[in-house]
Order: sequence, then C-alpha cells, then structure tokens
Amino acid sequence: MRFLIIGGSDAGISAALRAREIAPGIEVTVVLADAFPNFSICGLPFFLSGETPDWRTLAHRTEFEGIELMMNCAARTISFEDRSVEIAVQDGRKTLRYDRLLIATGAHPAMPQISGLNLEGVYPLHTMENSFRIQEHLNRGVRSAVLVGAGYIGLEMADALVHRGMIVTLVGRSEAVLSTVDADFGRIVEKELGRRGVAIQSGTEVTAIEKAGALLRVRGASGFSAEAEIVIVAPGVSPNTQLVANSGLELGEKGAIRVNRRMETSQPNVYAAGDCVETWHRILERNTYLPLGTTSHKQGRVAGENAVGGDRQFEGVLGTQVVKVFDLAIGRTGLRETEAQDAGFSPITASTGSFDHKAYYPGAQEILTKVTGDRNTGRLLGAQMIGHWQASVAKRLDVFATALFNRMAVDDLNDVDLSYTPPLGSPWDVVQLAAQKWTTRQSSPVSVY
Amino acid sequence: MRFLIIGGSDAGISAALRAREIAPGIEVTVVLADAFPNFSICGLPFFLSGETPDWRTLAHRTEFEGIELMMNCAARTISFEDRSVEIAVQDGRKTLRYDRLLIATGAHPAMPQISGLNLEGVYPLHTMENSFRIQEHLNRGVRSAVLVGAGYIGLEMADALVHRGMIVTLVGRSEAVLSTVDADFGRIVEKELGRRGVAIQSGTEVTAIEKAGALLRVRGASGFSAEAEIVIVAPGVSPNTQLVANSGLELGEKGAIRVNRRMETSQPNVYAAGDCVETWHRILERNTYLPLGTTSHKQGRVAGENAVGGDRQFEGVLGTQVVKVFDLAIGRTGLRETEAQDAGFSPITASTGSFDHKAYYPGAQEILTKVTGDRNTGRLLGAQMIGHWQASVAKRLDVFATALFNRMAVDDLNDVDLSYTPPLGSPWDVVQLAAQKWTTRQSSPVSVY
Repeated sequence: MRFLIIGGSDAGISAALRAREIAPGIEVTVVLADAFPNFSICGLPFFLSGETPDWRTLAHRTEFEGIELMMNCAARTISFEDRSVEIAVQDGRKTLRYDRLLIATGAHPAMPQISGLNLEGVYPLHTMENSFRIQEHLNRGVRSAVLVGAGYIGLEMADALVHRGMIVTLVGRSEAVLSTVDADFGRIVEKELGRRGVAIQSGTEVTAIEKAGALLRVRGASGFSAEAEIVIVAPGVSPNTQLVANSGLELGEKGAIRVNRRMETSQPNVYAAGDCVETWHRILERNTYLPLGTTSHKQGRVAGENAVGGDRQFEGVLGTQVVKVFDLAIGRTGLRETEAQDAGFSPITASTGSFDHKAYYPGAQEILTKVTGDRNTGRLLGAQMIGHWQASVAKRLDVFATALFNRMAVDDLNDVDLSYTPPLGSPWDVVQLAAQKWTTRQSSPVSVY
Repeated sequence: MRFLIIGGSDAGISAALRAREIAPGIEVTVVLADAFPNFSICGLPFFLSGETPDWRTLAHRTEFEGIELMMNCAARTISFEDRSVEIAVQDGRKTLRYDRLLIATGAHPAMPQISGLNLEGVYPLHTMENSFRIQEHLNRGVRSAVLVGAGYIGLEMADALVHRGMIVTLVGRSEAVLSTVDADFGRIVEKELGRRGVAIQSGTEVTAIEKAGALLRVRGASGFSAEAEIVIVAPGVSPNTQLVANSGLELGEKGAIRVNRRMETSQPNVYAAGDCVETWHRILERNTYLPLGTTSHKQGRVAGENAVGGDRQFEGVLGTQVVKVFDLAIGRTGLRETEAQDAGFSPITASTGSFDHKAYYPGAQEILTKVTGDRNTGRLLGAQMIGHWQASVAKRLDVFATALFNRMAVDDLNDVDLSYTPPLGSPWDVVQLAAQKWTTRQSSPVSVY
C-alpha cells in the first residue's frame, strides 16, 4: 500500500517518519515542490544574520531512510475518485496513485496592500529561495534596511541585521511590536530594540514603497517615511489550498482545509496537516487557524499514524509561542485576557516580577510574568513571560503549557514539586510565585473565628 | 486566636505567611531556636565559595509584617492538654498558649560513624553556625580540603572550594557520586569534577579522621587515605523530633512525625510540616521521608492555610531534585527504574541525547535524558537529565514534573504544545524527543493490512 504525501516540510516529513516507524512495510512517497525537504524556515533570520553560515544546516534532518522523496515536483491536481495525484516532472506530467493521501501544502505569504512591492531591493521573507535572494543582496555591502512587519520574523530580522552591523528601521501596524503579547510587553521589546539602535515605528500602516535615488523610500500613515538600501517585508500567511480549489474538499477557518481531530478531511482516505489546515484549540474548544512549525510536526505525526491504521487524536494547540530578540525571550501560552473574555471566560490577570534564581547567587535576572485565570472556576487560562533569554523563560512557559494541557487551576501550580537549586531557581519557582500573586489577587481574605 | 509555630525555617515561615495572607486578623507567633528566620541553607556552599559574599543575603525574606518572631528561643516542652509550649528565654522559661500549633522543627544532622569527628579542623555543614566556623577556618588561608559525602552538599562544596582555588578531595560511599541519580550520570559528574581538578574517591566508606602533623588524614576502606588542612563532612539528616519524644505524638516513616495530607498530627489542633515530618509521595502513594526545602515550603503553606480554617491537601512530592556542579546541571523527578520496580511497576527506561536548541544556532549543548515509564500502562514514572547548566535542564525537568503530577502517559508528552524558537528549543523539545525514544522502544511496530 502506498501512503502519498504532498508537501515535504514539517507536517509531510513528520507523517512520513511516523508512518514508517509504526508500519515499516509501507511504501511512503513524499512529493515536494522545491528541493528543501524538512528545512527549518524559522532559521532563516539566523542564516541571514551570519550566525548560521551554511543554509544546508537548516535541515531538521537529512536522512529519510525508506521514504521516497520526489523533489521539484509540484502537485497539479488530485482525483479523489481515482485516488491519484498528477504532478509536474521535468519532462511533463506524471500520475501517482495512492491508498492514503496526506495534503501538507503549507501556507503562502499574504502580502500586505503596499505599492512598490515589485521594486528591485524589496523582498518578502517566507521561503528558502527568498532568503537566498536577500542574502545575495545583503552581501553586496548594503548598510541600511527597512523592515515591514513587527511580528516574529520582523523582530528576528531586526536582530539579525543589527548583528551584521546594519542600520535598521522597523515599521509595524500594531500599537506596539509583537502583537501576539500584551502591548506593555511589546514596549519592553521596543526598549530592547532601541537600546540596540533599531529605529521603531509602531502603529503605522505602510502604504507605499518607492525609489528615492539610489535608495528605497517606505511611506506610511501619518506622514511616516524612511529610506534604506533594502526593504524586507515579513508577510502574514494564509493556507495554501490552491491544489484543492474546486475539488469539493471542504474548507474551514480562514479558508484552511477542514479536518477532524484525526486529521481526516471530508474525503475518505485523505488526510491533511500543517499550515494548510484549521487547527483545534484545546482551550477555546473550536477550530482556529494558527500556523506554526510545532503544530505541523504534531499534526503530521497524528496523520501519519492514522493513515497506516493507528488511532490517534490531535490534542490541540494552546497557542504557545516564544521568540528571542537580542537579550530578551518573550512568549505566551494559552489565552490573553482579551482573548479569554471573547471566549466567554471571566478572566483576571496578575502580573509579577521575580528573579529567575536566588538573587544571592550571581547573575539573577528578573522575569515578568502575567497569569490569566478564570475568576469563577480558578482555571488557568494563559500566561505571558518576558525576561533574559538565558533565564529559562521558554521552558517556564512550557510548565504553564503542560498545566494548561491538563486543565489545571492556577492555584494547583503551587502543589507541583518543581526543581530547585539556588543557581537555577527558587523554592517557589517563578511560575509558582506568579500563581500565588494571581491567587492572592483573586481571593478576598477569609474571615475565620 | 493564636497560631503558634515552632521553627522559623521554610515550613514555619511559609505557614505563618499563608495564615496571615488568608486570615489577616489572626495572631501568629514564630518561635525559633536561632536568629536566622527563613534562611536559605541551600545557599551555604555559595557563601563559602565567595560567590555570595554577605551571608545576610541568604535570607529568603527579611520582612515578616504582622508576624511575631521570637528568636533564640528554643521550645522545651509541649503540653497538648494545656495547649501550651514552654520555651527557653534569656532569663529562664516562658509558657506560650496556642489555639493552633505548628511543629516545624526541621532535621538534625545524622553524622556518619567516623572516629575523629571532634578534631580541630573537622566540620559538619548543616547550619548557618557551621558555615560561619568553616568560613573562619578557610579564611586563615587554608589551601586543601577533604570533603566527606558526595551528595548535593559535597558536590556543591567541591565546586565552591575549587572556586576559592583550593585543592579538593571528595570521598563518597556510593558507586558513583550523586547516588540520587543513576551511576552512569554520576560518572559524568565525576568526569566534570575531574576536569576541574577534584580528586574523587567513590565507593569508599570513611572510617577515621586523625591528625597527621599539621594536617588531617582521612582514612577509609581498602586503604584509602587523603590529607588536607580542613575536613568538611556533609551529613545525612534525620527528623528533629526531640521536642515531642515521649509526648505521645505519633511518629511514622524514619521516626518523622506522622501527618495526614492536611498536615495534621495525631493531636487535635496540632500541625507539623517540613523536615521533621513524613511526606506523601504522589507516585508511590505512600509516606516517605524526603526532606527538601521545596517540600517544606509547600507543606508549610498547606498547614498554615488549614490552621486558620482553610481546607487544603498536600498533593505530595514527586522526588524532584536538581543540582549544579561546575558547568553541569543534573536532576531527576519521579522514580528511577529500580525504584519503580520496587514499587511494583513494570518500568522500562529509554535514554536520549539531544541538543537544547537547534544545532544550527550557536551554542547548542547536548542534554542526556532518561525517561522511565510503565510498559503495561504507558504511564510516565520518572525522568533524569544531565546537561549544561545554561541549557534549561532544571525547567525541562519541571515539564516532566508537571506531567507526572497529572499522571500523564509518556506518549502524551508529544501532544503538549510546547514553545519553540531555534535559539531556545526544537519543534519537538528535548522532553518530547525523549518521550518519542521511549515510545519507540516500548512499542513493537504494528503490522497493518
């Protein structure tokens, strides 16, 4: 039996590996449009900064034992009736039959409405190919850049280009950079960017890019204007479902392919996973569109297991995300207060500042933590953290994430036997001090006797 | 009403604070035998290394608003009938009445059977006072030390004295240092110690300490002998229950005070918490004796809450522990394979080596992880980790601990939406790669179709 997979990035390769792992006798074929199977697209800023000199090392893996990889073969059409996929090959087209099919076509960039995007020196950053073109341009000795978009990619690129010694301007639409966390955290990130010489323009919609002599000029709302030698646009993304348009395959959230929690589509024997599908949110208990590499890996693993006869359910995302910007790590998991409100919870949020380890041991760093919980049930709904990137911010978020996964109450966190040694923590870890702050804020003092 | 607390370390102060937090009207009195309320005894090695120059900063807190602290007042007897405690004060004795009592008298050192422990230059390390005497001796310009005991304190002291530029010999009884983790992990720690110039003698029972001219000679089994200017003994501990001997108060595991999960003793209105009590183990589902500061804090908080009319249960320990030794962090949570076997589980263990973050980003460090799970149920039973101290080993153990707290299966860890960015992790975190290794080892490939 053949398990055919369209797409060779995180979801596709995870599915292929998992299928082979539990059913070694199966024939697994992965068809991919480019020549970069399972590359870490998240690593592009570090390739462009020079910290990762060789792009080849961005591959999550280079061994695909027992898996047939067909590179540079874009899938053209699917016939669900014939159980076949037509792909473009060097000398024309070819038809591949399948017993089980996985659609893992990912996302494509959703470029903002800006004039001048096609000018020389203006680049989107979404694919390996994009990064090669940017690298080539940067290597000409370019000294200044405007970055459009202040989300993860924009911020990492600001860090990357400062690392190269460039003069950087960062323009973002939202009130503060990194709109996936609260604006007061965003402003702490802005301070860090400013300290490293990045000029920041938040709350500004970019409207046009135009030539200005040898430079490019980026124009935006309220008279904003900045000039530089290169302009890099960090686009949003939308599900890449071109292949199944008009195929009758059901679509869901934001036009992503509709899947159930077994990652099955509306067609029998056809699975879908990764940035092209809608995603079950474990706390909202509904589908969302939240494309992330971690999710693609998990969904691919589930799809691969089910495709070869397993029975596994995708357990849902928690919205966990983290990014490093210069010396800071900033992240979140679960719902922010406004999101929780919108979802019908009765959230309250408490903020805490505490040291990552005992202050008497050298090098202690302050971490700011926000905990959001439901005032009626006490249930933990989410957490946001910001602190030094070596202060284990990301893994403390993972403790919150594991608690969220298990539907713990905020106050239950105080019962967990977490590790402690003075150079690495406190008897009550940061996570627990934050939970205690929430609990104290939440509960009115009781009167006894 | 008066809540009287005997003992001003972690458990006693946590109880006092929690009682005041939820019942601000209550009168809380803490009686302590010394003058060091809520000091971080775990910090003594860093005071002795010089990294924490001022011992006063070892106080977890110095503000005790609303709490009456009676320092240098050892409790002498308790009358449960009269609800009173007799304490020694400067000019004699004094009787304090209570409505609720907490016994938090901690542990005392259990010195090994070695002759010569009373020689000048031989010190136990257990209390603040011990550390002052050692510091004074070290400050005389001592250049060499023998450390007896290769557990947490012994290892941290080896690190501390090397930090001071001293020549250090470490003697331990067990097969390898740090017998709380598997011996192969202990041997990795030994390698790190050796790399820093520490002479290690594992598997050796020390029998005698004697004078050898101006030096001290430590003798042990199999002809072991080492000489140095100072000898520091890291003792084991046993529950300090002298105060309640012959009082009729029920004792349990290892002679520790018997408590239920509300931290109530066999006497009405009398609670006990911390290193003097037996401790509920969440996985073993029975009482053990496992004295640790983190546990004392939690038990104190529970006792304090219940003493003033709350209703909270101590949720049990998982055996989570971590220590930093030079560049390494080593820790564990839950049960090791042998412990799980003894407890009636059917454990298997898988070992994994993986990088703390994507290897293409500079500075990646390998972490070794052992995962132990039950082969019949798939339940996670424990984890051990060793890696660079800045590679978030401790907080990854906390993810395992949170999973253990919630009785997760090993394979469930793969479903948790953990954070990822290339400088701080991988799309599958170390924790998940270890879980996958266990799952693959555990499951035979399925045959489908």
